[in-house]
Amino acid sequence: MAKDKFALGIDYGTESGRAVVVRVRDGKVLASHVVPYPDGVIDEKLPAGPKLEPDWALQNPQDYLTVTAKAVPMALKAAGVKGEDVVGIGTDFTASSPLPTKTDGTPLCALPQFRKHPHAWVKLWKHHAAQPEANRINEIGRARNEEFIRIYGGKYSSEWFFSKLLQVVDEAPAVYDAMDQFIEAADWIVWQLTGEEKRNTCTASYKGMWVKGAGFPSKEFFRALDPRMENVIEEKIGNDFYPLGAKAGGLTAEWAKKTGLKEGTPVSIGNVDAHVAVPACTVTEPGSLVMIMGTSICHMLLGTRKQMVEGMCGTVEDGIVPGLWGYEAGQSAVGDIFAWFFEHGIPDYIHQQARKEKKPFAAVLEKRAAALKPGESGLLALDWWNGNRSILVDVDLTGTMVGLTLATRAEEIYRALIEATAFGTRTIIEAFDSKGIQVEHLVACGGLPEKNQLLMQIYADVTGRDIKLADPLQTCSALGAAMHGAVAAGAAGGGYDTIVGAAKHMAKVQKLTYKPRKEAHEIYNRLFKEYTALHNYFGRGANDVMKRLKSLKREQSS
Amino acid sequence: MAKDKFALGIDYGTESGRAVVVRVRDGKVLASHVVPYPDGVIDEKLPAGPKLEPDWALQNPQDYLTVTAKAVPMALKAAGVKGEDVVGIGTDFTASSPLPTKTDGTPLCALPQFRKHPHAWVKLWKHHAAQPEANRINEIGRARNEEFIRIYGGKYSSEWFFSKLLQVVDEAPAVYDAMDQFIEAADWIVWQLTGEEKRNTCTASYKGMWVKGAGFPSKEFFRALDPRMENVIEEKIGNDFYPLGAKAGGLTAEWAKKTGLKEGTPVSIGNVDAHVAVPACTVTEPGSLVMIMGTSICHMLLGTRKQMVEGMCGTVEDGIVPGLWGYEAGQSAVGDIFAWFFEHGIPDYIHQQARKEKKPFAAVLEKRAAALKPGESGLLALDWWNGNRSILVDVDLTGTMVGLTLATRAEEIYRALIEATAFGTRTIIEAFDSKGIQVEHLVACGGLPEKNQLLMQIYADVTGRDIKLADPLQTCSALGAAMHGAVAAGAAGGGYDTIVGAAKHMAKVQKLTYKPRKEAHEIYNRLFKEYTALHNYFGRGANDVMKRLKSLKREQSS
Repeated sequence: MAKDKFALGIDYGTESGRAVVVRVRDGKVLASHVVPYPDGVIDEKLPAGPKLEPDWALQNPQDYLTVTAKAVPMALKAAGVKGEDVVGIGTDFTASSPLPTKTDGTPLCALPQFRKHPHAWVKLWKHHAAQPEANRINEIGRARNEEFIRIYGGKYSSEWFFSKLLQVVDEAPAVYDAMDQFIEAADWIVWQLTGEEKRNTCTASYKGMWVKGAGFPSKEFFRALDPRMENVIEEKIGNDFYPLGAKAGGLTAEWAKKTGLKEGTPVSIGNVDAHVAVPACTVTEPGSLVMIMGTSICHMLLGTRKQMVEGMCGTVEDGIVPGLWGYEAGQSAVGDIFAWFFEHGIPDYIHQQARKEKKPFAAVLEKRAAALKPGESGLLALDWWNGNRSILVDVDLTGTMVGLTLATRAEEIYRALIEATAFGTRTIIEAFDSKGIQVEHLVACGGLPEKNQLLMQIYADVTGRDIKLADPLQTCSALGAAMHGAVAAGAAGGGYDTIVGAAKHMAKVQKLTYKPRKEAHEIYNRLFKEYTALHNYFGRGANDVMKRLKSLKREQSS
Repeated sequence: MAKDKFALGIDYGTESGRAVVVRVRDGKVLASHVVPYPDGVIDEKLPAGPKLEPDWALQNPQDYLTVTAKAVPMALKAAGVKGEDVVGIGTDFTASSPLPTKTDGTPLCALPQFRKHPHAWVKLWKHHAAQPEANRINEIGRARNEEFIRIYGGKYSSEWFFSKLLQVVDEAPAVYDAMDQFIEAADWIVWQLTGEEKRNTCTASYKGMWVKGAGFPSKEFFRALDPRMENVIEEKIGNDFYPLGAKAGGLTAEWAKKTGLKEGTPVSIGNVDAHVAVPACTVTEPGSLVMIMGTSICHMLLGTRKQMVEGMCGTVEDGIVPGLWGYEAGQSAVGDIFAWFFEHGIPDYIHQQARKEKKPFAAVLEKRAAALKPGESGLLALDWWNGNRSILVDVDLTGTMVGLTLATRAEEIYRALIEATAFGTRTIIEAFDSKGIQVEHLVACGGLPEKNQLLMQIYADVTGRDIKLADPLQTCSALGAAMHGAVAAGAAGGGYDTIVGAAKHMAKVQKLTYKPRKEAHEIYNRLFKEYTALHNYFGRGANDVMKRLKSLKREQSS
């Protein structure tokens, strides 16, 4: 029997980086090591001083290097794997998280003259300060009937690449002029590891208006945004993009030394956390919706044709798995809503019971909520605590709870919150369904499914579909990154030639499947009708009270 | 100078009874003593065993006797007043709280064969299980164009006398057959104290379909409700009713002995807590809305003419003060909503701050809520945690909160709850206003105003009206009862001949007046518009989601 070979995956998340060592033949994760970013999410003030305005969220690119240099050797050591037995390296990143650099890859924020300039740093995916720019992009895009408007389900987000770049143009022309590149951190890290600046098609397509075979919108479009941007593609971005799983280059000597890996080890083209999770969840065919469930949910689905679906974040050929169309949708707050409730809504009697039973209060709450039947609380919520990403694409929508009485208990509110997020997922499934893109069953990964059986059962009951769980659950993005590393190596190099092949051997699901219960599903069908009526009333303009309350709030907070 | 004379007031509340000793010449409350009802509100199971269904709320009539025998001597003792110096006794009661009795006044629930029968007990005002009966009454009343439909603002409530009686007919015909009387507890207690069964016009008019000069609806109406009820008036109720302030009789020897009062002391005709509070708040003329603010709010207003107003609980000639029309409206939960929030919605950080600052957590919450500007929370609530009494008269409406985000804090929710109840009061004021019945300023009494300055300021800001506070605040119903005791005594007996005369001498308001702040009032005008839109959407049939959720809840709870 030949000696085992391994692939290394590095997952660059919002708060930390994680390295995993994965056995190529069966996908077994031998070790996983997490290192938090020293500067974390920079949303109050820059390390170098200046305070940030509300809605800003930045990162320090140096942190990505720091966690790589720490996490990789620790993971290798924990796995008992030698660097020479690693055949390929894959990465995945949050997106869109772009940064401005010089020609040699130096981030502008690393230059003394730009350290105190917020626009010189990485704009993290959840940086929300470019809404005016997104509005302008949508207005001009719609007026010009640009293709990207259709690709993104009708709306380009303030979270994405060109909204963030246009904000630099608007607010910091000196930074715009000084940058030679504006590049996704997903591509920047691969550039650092290999010395090759090779950008990936995934972020370009999902966040960057790039269309396979057609490229970017025209110079006229960019000039219409701002005359200084007429030549932005040639000057700051380029026209070459590389498919997922392709080899970007070999690991540099410097990084081989830092990590204990072998110089020249193939490194895969950069990739996105939600997207690499799909094959890691065993999904390489249409029909299975992958839910990456954490603070928010990303919904990923494969299809055989181009199809505009309301409120999707993107519809991209080869966007997830080569040869298929990749659809992405999402809910902007899910775990975040429960975390909010845990902080702001847990009354004393829950804490008391938890102390008495020596359990975490969340366990007490879940047990009490699980004892309720669907509909028994009399509550119905709209899950818009952080706006609505899909299908309404509206950050100014807000959370709502109907049905409160003097008899309402904390566990009932908690259950109603879970149910509301499940109705949000069902709304997305029905949007796909209405366009003939079928969702036969669900595969979940991420941090939420592991913690919360009640939640998973409710999702099965609400959607009326089986839910399988990825294995591993929480490190599925890192596994997906490693799988892409194995593909970069190729079969000849000890890996696989295609991601489909890698998925066949390296990805698996758990035995446990959550199955919808008929009676509960029928009750939830009734409740979902009510949810949809309120969703449409508050979300589609019949009563814009949420927007007016938000606008009054802004007025009175200032 | 003649020796001081005193009046005794007994206020029978929801949880307890209170006796006050009041100086007749100036209304000074010398002492006040509260005794909780031993069986309290019976809403889970009867003392004798059987469990109650949801929405039931009963009381034990024996408790009224127990608290009388304890509270009166304690109050006299605390006041240092001798029984012989008490010139008159007045009572006030919750309403409608009727009970079935035998001819001699024995409650059916005191008979061994009926002890385990829920329908044999007092149905407390907040017993909500007679909604189907109320629906039938309204349907038949409307079809027959009965006068009571107009008197009650278009809807007869499930909380009232004949809904409760019809529920007995429907569910417990044996109890119906066995009862010789179905009588308001307000009248039953006076019967016990004096040996005279003399019913009052106030509950008869506000809760019992009786109209001055016209009497009850016809036999045909009652037969239409149920053939067995054709002769209900003659058989179980009678046609004689006595005006407020009239003497029902003298105190019996037995009760003189139990209380230390003098045998034969004049006892006033039974009365209702909210109604006696009006003259105790100095109000004996149109233009001032009295708010009795506690777990709920009763709104009482005097007018010079008969006028139907949407959703009023009653429009009654001589109903509060002789010679004027008395209007009654209400909000079914106010303090109850805050109590609910205090029990179910206070997170740890509020308790922590309270411990740190050595303050009650409610004080911490109020301080934090008071620091917010109107509209700053971005929240808007519908205050229907216990249905809507006025102006929609619908117990199946429920509480709603719009505008929740991940940044929402407990004090913001608390403030939004207060604001919602203030919007509820403003809705009632505007309903009066729309019919030309003007509300120039407000006078508040009850437990809430004393505890919560923020609440009172918000009510002034939301309604745009000055609010004065009664003195005493919390015992104003008991004071009003005592004032009616003084009227039962008459001037010749050491009291007063009219309630207007008694009010002139015995009632007063505090110096403190809450005045509306212009800027806050303008913001609240905007928010009230939003409140009204949601009030009408959820409350007037555009989307009956609340009713469907409640009905599903009932279905799933059973």
